[in-house]
Amino acid sequence: MSRFIHENFLLQNPAAIRLYHEYAAEMPIIDYHCHLPPRDIAENRQFENLTQIWLAGDHYKWRAMRAAGVDEKYITGGASDWEKFAVWASVVPKTLRNPLYHWTHLELNRPFGINDRLLSPDTAKSIWDECNAKLRTPEFSARGIMRQMDVKLVCTTDDPADSLEWHRKIAADESFDIQVFPTFRPDKALQICVPQPRYPYTEESIKSYNKYLDKLGKAAEVEIKTFDNLLEALAQRHNYFHENGSRLSDHGYTFFSFNEYIDEPWRGSVFAEFENLRQGGDASYELISSMESAVLYHVTQWNSEKEWTTQLHIGAIRNNNSRMYEKLGADAGFDSIVDEDFAVAFSKFLDKLDQNKKLPKTIVYNLNPSANEMLATMIGNFQDGKTPGKMQFGSAWWFLDQKDGMEKQLNCLSNLGLLSQFVGMLTDSRSFLSYTRHEYFRRILCNLLGTEIESGLLPNDFEMLGGMVRDICYNNAKQYFGFETKL
Amino acid sequence: MSRFIHENFLLQNPAAIRLYHEYAAEMPIIDYHCHLPPRDIAENRQFENLTQIWLAGDHYKWRAMRAAGVDEKYITGGASDWEKFAVWASVVPKTLRNPLYHWTHLELNRPFGINDRLLSPDTAKSIWDECNAKLRTPEFSARGIMRQMDVKLVCTTDDPADSLEWHRKIAADESFDIQVFPTFRPDKALQICVPQPRYPYTEESIKSYNKYLDKLGKAAEVEIKTFDNLLEALAQRHNYFHENGSRLSDHGYTFFSFNEYIDEPWRGSVFAEFENLRQGGDASYELISSMESAVLYHVTQWNSEKEWTTQLHIGAIRNNNSRMYEKLGADAGFDSIVDEDFAVAFSKFLDKLDQNKKLPKTIVYNLNPSANEMLATMIGNFQDGKTPGKMQFGSAWWFLDQKDGMEKQLNCLSNLGLLSQFVGMLTDSRSFLSYTRHEYFRRILCNLLGTEIESGLLPNDFEMLGGMVRDICYNNAKQYFGFETKL
Amino acid sequence: MSRFIHENFLLQNPAAIRLYHEYAAEMPIIDYHCHLPPRDIAENRQFENLTQIWLAGDHYKWRAMRAAGVDEKYITGGASDWEKFAVWASVVPKTLRNPLYHWTHLELNRPFGINDRLLSPDTAKSIWDECNAKLRTPEFSARGIMRQMDVKLVCTTDDPADSLEWHRKIAADESFDIQVFPTFRPDKALQICVPQPRYPYTEESIKSYNKYLDKLGKAAEVEIKTFDNLLEALAQRHNYFHENGSRLSDHGYTFFSFNEYIDEPWRGSVFAEFENLRQGGDASYELISSMESAVLYHVTQWNSEKEWTTQLHIGAIRNNNSRMYEKLGADAGFDSIVDEDFAVAFSKFLDKLDQNKKLPKTIVYNLNPSANEMLATMIGNFQDGKTPGKMQFGSAWWFLDQKDGMEKQLNCLSNLGLLSQFVGMLTDSRSFLSYTRHEYFRRILCNLLGTEIESGLLPNDFEMLGGMVRDICYNNAKQYFGFETKL
Repeated sequence: MSRFIHENFLLQNPAAIRLYHEYAAEMPIIDYHCHLPPRDIAENRQFENLTQIWLAGDHYKWRAMRAAGVDEKYITGGASDWEKFAVWASVVPKTLRNPLYHWTHLELNRPFGINDRLLSPDTAKSIWDECNAKLRTPEFSARGIMRQMDVKLVCTTDDPADSLEWHRKIAADESFDIQVFPTFRPDKALQICVPQPRYPYTEESIKSYNKYLDKLGKAAEVEIKTFDNLLEALAQRHNYFHENGSRLSDHGYTFFSFNEYIDEPWRGSVFAEFENLRQGGDASYELISSMESAVLYHVTQWNSEKEWTTQLHIGAIRNNNSRMYEKLGADAGFDSIVDEDFAVAFSKFLDKLDQNKKLPKTIVYNLNPSANEMLATMIGNFQDGKTPGKMQFGSAWWFLDQKDGMEKQLNCLSNLGLLSQFVGMLTDSRSFLSYTRHEYFRRILCNLLGTEIESGLLPNDFEMLGGMVRDICYNNAKQYFGFETKL
Repeated sequence: MSRFIHENFLLQNPAAIRLYHEYAAEMPIIDYHCHLPPRDIAENRQFENLTQIWLAGDHYKWRAMRAAGVDEKYITGGASDWEKFAVWASVVPKTLRNPLYHWTHLELNRPFGINDRLLSPDTAKSIWDECNAKLRTPEFSARGIMRQMDVKLVCTTDDPADSLEWHRKIAADESFDIQVFPTFRPDKALQICVPQPRYPYTEESIKSYNKYLDKLGKAAEVEIKTFDNLLEALAQRHNYFHENGSRLSDHGYTFFSFNEYIDEPWRGSVFAEFENLRQGGDASYELISSMESAVLYHVTQWNSEKEWTTQLHIGAIRNNNSRMYEKLGADAGFDSIVDEDFAVAFSKFLDKLDQNKKLPKTIVYNLNPSANEMLATMIGNFQDGKTPGKMQFGSAWWFLDQKDGMEKQLNCLSNLGLLSQFVGMLTDSRSFLSYTRHEYFRRILCNLLGTEIESGLLPNDFEMLGGMVRDICYNNAKQYFGFETKL
Repeated sequence: MSRFIHENFLLQNPAAIRLYHEYAAEMPIIDYHCHLPPRDIAENRQFENLTQIWLAGDHYKWRAMRAAGVDEKYITGGASDWEKFAVWASVVPKTLRNPLYHWTHLELNRPFGINDRLLSPDTAKSIWDECNAKLRTPEFSARGIMRQMDVKLVCTTDDPADSLEWHRKIAADESFDIQVFPTFRPDKALQICVPQPRYPYTEESIKSYNKYLDKLGKAAEVEIKTFDNLLEALAQRHNYFHENGSRLSDHGYTFFSFNEYIDEPWRGSVFAEFENLRQGGDASYELISSMESAVLYHVTQWNSEKEWTTQLHIGAIRNNNSRMYEKLGADAGFDSIVDEDFAVAFSKFLDKLDQNKKLPKTIVYNLNPSANEMLATMIGNFQDGKTPGKMQFGSAWWFLDQKDGMEKQLNCLSNLGLLSQFVGMLTDSRSFLSYTRHEYFRRILCNLLGTEIESGLLPNDFEMLGGMVRDICYNNAKQYFGFETKL
């Protein structure tokens, strides 16, 4: 049996092979959106074993294991690391055609150099031993892996109340030249209802929300009594993030709505209700909805003023399984895609900012592929004829981060916008092993273009197409975000 | 011109051919959801001619004939059987690229053995004569055809008020070893509004609904005065179905909604209103919606207790053409796909059952492909780490039961769940000639996998892939449903 | 480098090549829906240069230029025609994979005969000079181009208040044998809210609406005081359009809704409110919604009586960018796809007409591909068994008018209806250079069919498939619309 992962994996014709190897492969990585813990980078964490670096925290794998009938003990429970890995190895053959099967073997190939075996119960022990041995070497520390993967710049995802101490330590460390910037993600400043935005808030959830605001106020040195105080505190932290190199904000929306909070009468009642909430009182759904609109509206305006980029993640409905949420909390593999309409609200949001000349560069990540065409055309209404590709239809996200989802995003963007201006791939990952996701994306991109060259749908001009590949892999991102960068 | 249907039909590469012929073809059929009349099996019906077995009751063909401009006389009207068949033969060439074109020739090939001609006005007479001659032989009786197609087990779809007399006769007949079990489908216990759930109910529809409840009460030996009586009657029939081998319930929803009927205040008002309705009084939309939630909620809990499987068919809007509904009634070819959002309601429904540890094995069949990704991810939140593939994204249904629809379902399930755990195909048919639908599915499945082996997207390991094919074709269904089976 | 546009462009296998060259290519064009200015045809306009005929008014190109960061000066502003063209040439390479790249080179190939160069800054000047020289010749006048492209019949899109003077001049001109008919598009009779249907109306918008009604009244010689007067005026113009050869109406809907305006109580209040509006008073949303329902309901009935065809364009949300709407007005490249559900409303609308036996031939054009399957099945409920293909799932529209969108429409129609009955392509264009859109469609159609012949999904019968191709390209449209034609 031939090797599964080989140099031409996913490249199905000569043009694809040429585009990948001559243009894409050599480009470094700008990973402008991920969830890596900055502390692990600052402390250059050395992982104990393959389970620690690969399975702990990976809710994609957890979901697959549950679907295969694996007991929670071997997923998030008390089984040993080896037991967990062995069980995962037994599930891998059941993930055929799921992206996990490709991701798994791409990651074993790089950085671990294992491509002569498929992961299965038969090979579990040998792979475990081989990888664990490597994980003890400096090349496989957090920083070692980043260097191996030719990463130049990383943006983590951070709460406004975060002190950014680890980012500051990394920046101060002259021995490490990969840049690590924070991203401003103020979702917690809105989370009155848990675990979902339309669930009833409880006494406890309001208490916990107030506790968060106290923490935020402390970080910003602002006493948060009024809604204006909240905005003031966020603005202060936005400045602080800017000083620490941040050039992006990020916002998660289950249901994207945008109401006319900015009209004076509305604001008055939002203000009053918020003050009541701060004293432990009730919150109405109107308040929650208005706060979402208000925070998004203000942060995006600050972004515009400082030439940042707004990222919007739309369409995830989280924590659907209450029983498991009680046990494991958020991000445990119980999230999915939601289906509500939002074209009108989204149009009004962008229009309002554009009217005030405060619409920043914006990337929209979409989780429900049924909304792809709507979104790709909607952002096109706000390209401003100044910043090339100002409004971006973001890379395939979460459940869609696989060959089919990426091809749909690339095709949709191509047909309804300009692929050539695309800022490309990101990992969106919690794991240092996910950088081959960029390789996956690049192979898929080159295969798509190569296939069209071969069939005459694209001109047979490698200089032109290869240049576009390089732009999408690296140059566009480098130019678009405006980082203060050593690149 | 070469044969259209041949041994490698739909198999477009050597790996696909190998997977189909070495792994898929030999597997028997478990048809766990269909609409065959059990009486036809019990009496081993011999069909008079090709129109009786092929056109009568086939609303797929009727729709195509209407779209081609054929007068109703030749569809459901008074034309002779031969005239109807001749007209259908003239429409067949106009169905090119519609699944009817493939289905038609697959069914002529098996069981009739006709694959040297395409159906058209030129060949109509010869095919009519040849098939009718065969239909007179024992091999082409209801049971004969089932045996020819290697069917091992069939689940019909039955009303709770049904006496199951034909199922009992079949079970008692030792000369017949194909198992035929009923499925519990209580839709009529909810149909206050006809012909659609949001149409206004009428005096007549309430009268007809009460008549149904009388019948149900009689079957269950329960006098249905209160809503609790209704549940009691259904529970009694659920037990009776269980005794007769049923291990599945089935539920059709145009608009899937789920309200908090279970909260005490709600229940009180539902109870009162139902009692009023039983005396011929009005029904509110709240009652109808609450009844839908309540019946589904209770039946699924009984399913959980008895280890049954719940089937949900979501997204069909039926009887859109009032004029033709008056003439022909339901299931006459005037149904289509609806487009309302239901992720939130569906999440709450599954969550409520899961919280109470009463979520049974569940198969969701989806009619609007725009909801595929939402659904495939939503069910993933409720895989329980015990039953492999407990929550199933069901096979492509009704309008989607064709190559494109099946490939979308298979790809979506693969990307967002575990294809390896899939319980596979069913006919959902009223016709004894539809078993080649399993062959169609298997060829499409093998072609999809084979194509990916050839292009390196799947490992070149036939033992592993062939095993998965066999599981999807037969083994998974055999293991999943827990029938008391001779298999 | 080989030629990009060549005789087998898009035709990827021998069967596709044979279908296109032996069956499709020779068929003339019936362009039954476009936005050509009839005056340009009547006066046989000679265009000054490539910018005038190609860039002026083409909001597809404008959007792409804005996305590439081009200043509005070079798009709709004061730059010279050459400057605009040069900037467009610099953007063209950035449109790779966007349909503009294909359209551009197809149009340079036909009618201009340029296929040895790709448009880019390097070739801009030579292409500019060569095309401008040709544009000065009689073969490249409005009529000259139409003749070159073998156009037989064109339907423009016209306001009911239009005098149709240019259509009458064209009809009276015996030297010109291409037929040019008007289409009845009464959208302005409903536009109380601008720029979007759910935007608040203003004093100004009501004034402007009343002004339009005055104009319509004058054209119809009806004083419009009451809602019945409005219907009377429209009916009069419908008759006038019929006399001038019109056999189609057209209606644009952002949100398709249909309320029960026809019930008497509703009508009374609509009537009263309309009279108030005519005196400059306010309008409620109920009025606007009822008027939309009423006008559509009445026009479709007149269509039925006169055997016209109703065209419905559903799903475009227009003028999303207020700032640019103020500057440039409508149709300037700030429109996109909307996402609201409408299956139920659409079902009721068709059903109401069908009940009254007043449902005309209908073509539904859909802008959101997520609604494709719903729509394709919904219209199938109203095929009447008299007119073949009476209910049409229209050709891929606007943003979807590209290879992927066309293939989705063709596949959806094939799987859920009868492709063989399809009335085929139209340009929907404002430009005399868009006729190669028919060629584009035909190549894509033949490639789709050819690919399936080669892979055995369709029978290898060129007489049968070639006949279907000819029907879709020309014969079906010729038969379907019932024009009084010289064809």
